[in-house]
Amino acid sequence: MSVVFALDPRLAADTLSVGTLPLCDLRLMNDSRFPWLVLVPRRVGRSEIVDLNGEEQTALMAEIVAVSGLLRTVTACDKLNVGALGNIVRQLHVHIVARFASDAAWPGPVWGQGKAVAYDPAAATAFIDTLRDLSGLA
Amino acid sequence: MSVVFALDPRLAADTLSVGTLPLCDLRLMNDSRFPWLVLVPRRVGRSEIVDLNGEEQTALMAEIVAVSGLLRTVTACDKLNVGALGNIVRQLHVHIVARFASDAAWPGPVWGQGKAVAYDPAAATAFIDTLRDLSGLA
Repeated sequence: MSVVFALDPRLAADTLSVGTLPLCDLRLMNDSRFPWLVLVPRRVGRSEIVDLNGEEQTALMAEIVAVSGLLRTVTACDKLNVGALGNIVRQLHVHIVARFASDAAWPGPVWGQGKAVAYDPAAATAFIDTLRDLSGLA
Repeated sequence: MSVVFALDPRLAADTLSVGTLPLCDLRLMNDSRFPWLVLVPRRVGRSEIVDLNGEEQTALMAEIVAVSGLLRTVTACDKLNVGALGNIVRQLHVHIVARFASDAAWPGPVWGQGKAVAYDPAAATAFIDTLRDLSGLA
C-alpha cells in the first residue's frame, strides 16, 4: 500500500475538483442529473469512517456539515442525502447529494440509478465557481 | 409541531428497539436480508444533520462510530454503509448497514431494494441481545 494519498482512479474519473478542505478533497460528481458533491479524506488506506481517528472523525463531521449547508444554500433542494457506501470504490468517500422531489431517482437513492449524464463543461465550471465563491475556496 | 420527541410512525413500524444512546435511539431494521441498524436523534423537527447543533453533531458522529464498530464486530461484514437519506421519512435518522458481497443488493445500496423480509422473532431477539451485550446496552 502506498504511503502517499492518491485519489482513487474511478473517483478521479467520475468527479471534478472543487477544492481542498482541511481533511478532505471536495469533488463534484460529473452527473448533471443531481447536484452531488463528494468528500474524500486525504488518508491512505481508509475504507470506513470508523477507521479514521477521533480527530479525523471530528473534522469529517465538520466538513459534512459545511458542505451540506453550502449545497443546500446553492440548490434550495428539498432534501440532502449523505452517505458513505464504498461497495465499489473502497477509498473512503462521503456523498452529499441535493435531492428534489422532481429528480430522476426520487424518492429512491441516487446510487446505482441509471447512467451519469456529464455536465456541459461551461455548466460544470459555473457550478464549481459558485461553490468556490460561497465556500471561500475560490 | 410537537415539542416532545416521538419516533416517526413508519420508523416505529419498520424497526425494533435495541437501546438508548446519549443522543439517539438505536433500532434494528426488521429486515433479515441485511444486518441494518438505525440511529434516530431524539430531537424534534430535525431532518438534516446540518440542522443539529454542534454538540449534537459531535454526539451523532460518536454514536455512528460506536455502532459501526459494534456492527462490524458482530457481523464480520465486508463493508459498512452509512447513510442519512430521509426522502420518505423526514425525521432525521442514520442508517448503518453491514454489507456482504453475497447479499441481495450488492454492490448497490439497500434502500429501495425489494421488500423487507421480517426476522423470525427468536432470531431478532437473539441478534438484539448480542448487540446489547457487546455494547453495554443490556
